[in-house]
Amino acid sequence: MKSKAVLAFSGGLDTSYCAVWLREQGYDVHTVTVQTDNAADEIAAIERRANALKVDSHTTVDARQQLFDDFLRYLIFANALRGDVYPLCVSAERVVQAKLCAQHALEIGADVLAHGSTGAGNDQVRFDVAFRVVAPHAEIVTPIRAQSLSRAAETDYLAQRGIDVPVRTTTYSVNRGIWGATIGGAETHRSDGVLPEDAYVLTAAPSDRPRSPDEISVRFKGGVPVALDGESMAPVALLATLEERAGKHGVGRGVHVGDTIVGIKGRVAFEAPAATVLIAAHRELEKLTLSRQQLFWKRTIGDLYGAMLHEARYFDPLARDIEAFLESSQRTVDGEVRVRLFDGHATVLGATSPYSLMNPERARYGEGSTLWGGAEAAAFSKLYGLQDQLLAQVRATAE
Amino acid sequence: MKSKAVLAFSGGLDTSYCAVWLREQGYDVHTVTVQTDNAADEIAAIERRANALKVDSHTTVDARQQLFDDFLRYLIFANALRGDVYPLCVSAERVVQAKLCAQHALEIGADVLAHGSTGAGNDQVRFDVAFRVVAPHAEIVTPIRAQSLSRAAETDYLAQRGIDVPVRTTTYSVNRGIWGATIGGAETHRSDGVLPEDAYVLTAAPSDRPRSPDEISVRFKGGVPVALDGESMAPVALLATLEERAGKHGVGRGVHVGDTIVGIKGRVAFEAPAATVLIAAHRELEKLTLSRQQLFWKRTIGDLYGAMLHEARYFDPLARDIEAFLESSQRTVDGEVRVRLFDGHATVLGATSPYSLMNPERARYGEGSTLWGGAEAAAFSKLYGLQDQLLAQVRATAE
Amino acid sequence: MKSKAVLAFSGGLDTSYCAVWLREQGYDVHTVTVQTDNAADEIAAIERRANALKVDSHTTVDARQQLFDDFLRYLIFANALRGDVYPLCVSAERVVQAKLCAQHALEIGADVLAHGSTGAGNDQVRFDVAFRVVAPHAEIVTPIRAQSLSRAAETDYLAQRGIDVPVRTTTYSVNRGIWGATIGGAETHRSDGVLPEDAYVLTAAPSDRPRSPDEISVRFKGGVPVALDGESMAPVALLATLEERAGKHGVGRGVHVGDTIVGIKGRVAFEAPAATVLIAAHRELEKLTLSRQQLFWKRTIGDLYGAMLHEARYFDPLARDIEAFLESSQRTVDGEVRVRLFDGHATVLGATSPYSLMNPERARYGEGSTLWGGAEAAAFSKLYGLQDQLLAQVRATAE
Amino acid sequence: MKSKAVLAFSGGLDTSYCAVWLREQGYDVHTVTVQTDNAADEIAAIERRANALKVDSHTTVDARQQLFDDFLRYLIFANALRGDVYPLCVSAERVVQAKLCAQHALEIGADVLAHGSTGAGNDQVRFDVAFRVVAPHAEIVTPIRAQSLSRAAETDYLAQRGIDVPVRTTTYSVNRGIWGATIGGAETHRSDGVLPEDAYVLTAAPSDRPRSPDEISVRFKGGVPVALDGESMAPVALLATLEERAGKHGVGRGVHVGDTIVGIKGRVAFEAPAATVLIAAHRELEKLTLSRQQLFWKRTIGDLYGAMLHEARYFDPLARDIEAFLESSQRTVDGEVRVRLFDGHATVLGATSPYSLMNPERARYGEGSTLWGGAEAAAFSKLYGLQDQLLAQVRATAE
Repeated sequence: MKSKAVLAFSGGLDTSYCAVWLREQGYDVHTVTVQTDNAADEIAAIERRANALKVDSHTTVDARQQLFDDFLRYLIFANALRGDVYPLCVSAERVVQAKLCAQHALEIGADVLAHGSTGAGNDQVRFDVAFRVVAPHAEIVTPIRAQSLSRAAETDYLAQRGIDVPVRTTTYSVNRGIWGATIGGAETHRSDGVLPEDAYVLTAAPSDRPRSPDEISVRFKGGVPVALDGESMAPVALLATLEERAGKHGVGRGVHVGDTIVGIKGRVAFEAPAATVLIAAHRELEKLTLSRQQLFWKRTIGDLYGAMLHEARYFDPLARDIEAFLESSQRTVDGEVRVRLFDGHATVLGATSPYSLMNPERARYGEGSTLWGGAEAAAFSKLYGLQDQLLAQVRATAE
Repeated sequence: MKSKAVLAFSGGLDTSYCAVWLREQGYDVHTVTVQTDNAADEIAAIERRANALKVDSHTTVDARQQLFDDFLRYLIFANALRGDVYPLCVSAERVVQAKLCAQHALEIGADVLAHGSTGAGNDQVRFDVAFRVVAPHAEIVTPIRAQSLSRAAETDYLAQRGIDVPVRTTTYSVNRGIWGATIGGAETHRSDGVLPEDAYVLTAAPSDRPRSPDEISVRFKGGVPVALDGESMAPVALLATLEERAGKHGVGRGVHVGDTIVGIKGRVAFEAPAATVLIAAHRELEKLTLSRQQLFWKRTIGDLYGAMLHEARYFDPLARDIEAFLESSQRTVDGEVRVRLFDGHATVLGATSPYSLMNPERARYGEGSTLWGGAEAAAFSKLYGLQDQLLAQVRATAE
Repeated sequence: MKSKAVLAFSGGLDTSYCAVWLREQGYDVHTVTVQTDNAADEIAAIERRANALKVDSHTTVDARQQLFDDFLRYLIFANALRGDVYPLCVSAERVVQAKLCAQHALEIGADVLAHGSTGAGNDQVRFDVAFRVVAPHAEIVTPIRAQSLSRAAETDYLAQRGIDVPVRTTTYSVNRGIWGATIGGAETHRSDGVLPEDAYVLTAAPSDRPRSPDEISVRFKGGVPVALDGESMAPVALLATLEERAGKHGVGRGVHVGDTIVGIKGRVAFEAPAATVLIAAHRELEKLTLSRQQLFWKRTIGDLYGAMLHEARYFDPLARDIEAFLESSQRTVDGEVRVRLFDGHATVLGATSPYSLMNPERARYGEGSTLWGGAEAAAFSKLYGLQDQLLAQVRATAE
Repeated sequence: MKSKAVLAFSGGLDTSYCAVWLREQGYDVHTVTVQTDNAADEIAAIERRANALKVDSHTTVDARQQLFDDFLRYLIFANALRGDVYPLCVSAERVVQAKLCAQHALEIGADVLAHGSTGAGNDQVRFDVAFRVVAPHAEIVTPIRAQSLSRAAETDYLAQRGIDVPVRTTTYSVNRGIWGATIGGAETHRSDGVLPEDAYVLTAAPSDRPRSPDEISVRFKGGVPVALDGESMAPVALLATLEERAGKHGVGRGVHVGDTIVGIKGRVAFEAPAATVLIAAHRELEKLTLSRQQLFWKRTIGDLYGAMLHEARYFDPLARDIEAFLESSQRTVDGEVRVRLFDGHATVLGATSPYSLMNPERARYGEGSTLWGGAEAAAFSKLYGLQDQLLAQVRATAE
């Protein structure tokens, strides 16, 4: 009996090559496409491609809800932006894709797990680690990484077998999912290149944006966005709506220079209209409802969570501990946040919450308070600075 | 002989009241204005006001250079933005003001140090702590905090003595310095109020902004901005130029909800065109030149530094230790960053540095590399994920 | 109707004074003693004292189980040792005492909450904060802090009313609970004083210790100690047994210099035989079962938890978030740890766990491994150090 | 001309094999022994061994002073104990050894750098990274790792060439340096094995320890130990004296389970009499002289420093930044610490410092203070807990 191989399949040149090459090594090839984007027609096209490659089976798994529940939810809780700008559009997707492929391998009793990543990025590590954790007994086969083929060589190989893979029409490699898109190529290979306007896929160019602002209200419950403009929506639908409304105004573009797991720097452009709006809105609501100490420590721990996801450390149990921390922190993150979308900006206008710690009737910053008096404030201030005062005195004496 | 009192003097109603009240308690009153803004005419007006109040002496100390060298420089190193948005325009100013007033008290042998802050904000604590650290033997007198007077009562008190303090013409309290301005009042007392356009003082309204973008190049040396568009400039002048150029395009507006030292939440609008551009540009250059681990830890430690400054912990020796850390981290933060100013955005276009760790000739993210091969990448990935794999196996066995 | 006051009552001079003084101010006085120690006869003596003071009611609440479940459990999870030595014997007790007194006040409808702490320590803050959080409408009355009386003056006051409070016979102030005892006074007021042997109350003097070691085995389940020498025990009983066995060998003595909330340094001796054994054993088991990253971050977050408890920040919701983190981290902390008790040492001999990540059959540190080969190790090592290598090259070129 | 290889040489079986094997591959072999221990006779023996192997040159570099100045000093500043027990005896040594070998290679123009580490430990990575950073153009050759030979095979190989390497007489692998010794083998391969008494090399067995305590006074200046019992000593000599005095009393033994860079757990016994005394003493002095916030953050950052050294991250510039932080923190760590050595314990008896923040004349913990009064303490406490109170009220209202 032939050995079964499960291949994480995107329908592109690399994974098409892998499918054919694996079959020629004698494997039964089972392709799996894990859907993390809303584009239904792309899913159908991938399926057609798989059939054209004569794979032994092709499976599509819709992972959008799971992607939100197990990953994006925590990224919102964490206000996770790599390098303070980039909302980790790809990392979460890749881990859920790898995990579900590996689970499929367990289900069908496959001995081999394959992916089409090169040896020069983060995805290879995300795939490998997830494969080994979920299906430790499977052998990992990675033709692209192992053979270091050029795209031309892959195309030739397939052409010789009568398989025609449509050449990518742009010079950019785009990864698109419900949390945003990344765009790499040409200008992003330099630290100072600027992408041309037509490289963007989710956000309107300045010239195409509406002349008047849109205003949107996002309701959060336990830190999770649950409604837009008062209308309750399931997360995946809410993200799609937000992407459309904010994308129209050019919201969520950026470029990020980041560190890869293997140590090199990489630069990538991204468009993340929904993530940009949600994180800004969520962060504002937290400022109103969390304690000073929660805000300080959540920032570091949330950044750590983002780093772990980025660096293929999702399966480290520390990630579970952080999720428990984040979940706990969201108990009172309920409320409504108004955001103005215009000219590429998502401007938080304000927020309200039943758990708001701002109470202008009791105390106004810098003005006055019925909660305490001037003498109390002076006494507080004196003891608050006591150690600094003692330190200064001791030093003056000792030196 | 009468006791000497040094009063931190802004020329406004509160400190004018303080000056007169202190004199009537029998003190020789010595007002000190520490200049942290570029507005020369305001300094002259403050001096006239002090003379009108018949103080025993009035001193202006230009602290702009010191403000940059001892505070803002580190805020740039730290990329310090409170709550990820607000560049601490006020905290640093207040500490340098308090420190220089206390040093003046030491110089002239004053027994009393006075400030005009209320008991409901952070400034009172910043003043008190600095006074006690620098001039521990001086008594601290704070008439506004102690007497909880209304502004009307203060005005009456002064009017009865023939002193006319011009009433503030707007409803907003504005604090302006070389690192930006804060605006409070009316709408900022609520968590969802939106400031009217005319409340802003440094940035152009959307309707007044130029129709075409400005592009600026900032050069950093050791993390410090040293040139604009190739022209070397001293920091204070550079900030002023940048404020003007970026302010014209509406760059640097925001609203922040923050925690005060005494525990209440406060909301404040700000305009910080220069700080916004510099921090974005500096952060980009760091991404290119610092190690992954430096970037991670600098973020937390830099945030801590901002918190310490905000929370009147500047004199804690930990702040010195962090400054040493930050200073060390900037050794290679040299280079040029291009920023586009337009429509309220400061968009970082790209950066170059002799210390750049991006080298597309040796390795391109996700594409290929001459530094390592596919088999090496696979081996790395395997050992990188080994502990996660072992953990998963152990759990599978144990459970 | 008279106003009701609930007084946190220890039966000592200070709280006896408070009880009488409060009654004379016209309050109905309701004393509450929250039991956090095993000494049953002391509880009876406190009750007799309360009756002798003619309080309106006296209530004893046994909080030992709650103390373990809500506080000590997390201190074990956190391996919490202040300053790396002191197991926070007092902080947790005080918070649970304050909380339960405040809850009693709510139950009986008291308007006043009183405690007998001075203004020079941490306990006052722990009491005040807990009182305000749990019973915000109650007035806080603190006669000892407010009146700054000497102990002699308190004794006189009581004597004049025919009340005889037995003078403490030693020069030391001892606080004893199920997590250990603290001893302060005389030598601890200096930074270099050494307590005499007879100041200790829980641990045997060197001359009284057994000549041969005791060996004990502690079993943990989910991070919680559940059995000694194979015998299942409830936590409070387990602590008592361990205190006796380890105390006999002089285990758990120490002296700690710490920071108080108000900014001064304090020095205190302690004896914590049970805590010392449990934390050492628990830490060892964690080293065997947690991931490298869990161990690193748990250390900082656990230290933060200890600091929060110490500094009266228990009610900050961040403490709940950390508890969720810690709880999550303990999922696999199951196993058996052997500890030798002898000559003041609790020496961890070794540990075993079904979740142990040490597997000498697969890999031996520094020797060999069947999990990977030499070429894989070399490749890993190369990529692991790649960024450092690139940094060095870039610097060599740039400088 | 033959290619030159520099071999890090310890004189043991592994590196002897490497020397011969390299020569047979056609290299000129230049052995380097970096001395990090005090044992002069061992250095001579290593030199004789090198000569017997007919290497082209043998060089001994005394790195003890450098080891202290560049590494151990910071480990003291950091109070660095891995897993709260192990003073990193090996990591620092290995990095300095690797660094100096690589520098030797640069000096003599060698193309190859070789070490004798296996593929199953941390040392291989420490060597590789240091080699690549210091001498990036050198090829790294690692015969033991590459060939996975058994010790018997190595012995045979050498015997066939007439070279007799004395077989290690014990079952333990001991690494000894001025910061302590590690002992691995047999019992340490299991998580619950207990080393026999005769495995220890630096510390006296219980039966051989003096019957009466020794008391020692350590003076620190800027955090560096500079005198013992009042006698000024250079660091290396001070460590040697302390090792002898504390070792005699059995001080500094322990066992640590740690994480390796490659992901497996390793267990090792250690003896570090000098490090144990110095870190305990230094920590005490810091508690007396540093601010509360310094102590908190130094603990985490110091632990990070230890982790970086352990994990071969010494060359990451973050390590330099941390060194700057640590250096800054030590400005006031001056003073004298008394330590009692007895029965395996190093008990800190007390410390004094001109920078001590303990001043019993001004304030005594829990008793009274001339620095503030009861009303001030109450006011402080009220505002200190204000946010917790507001949070509780808001939750009560909202829920």
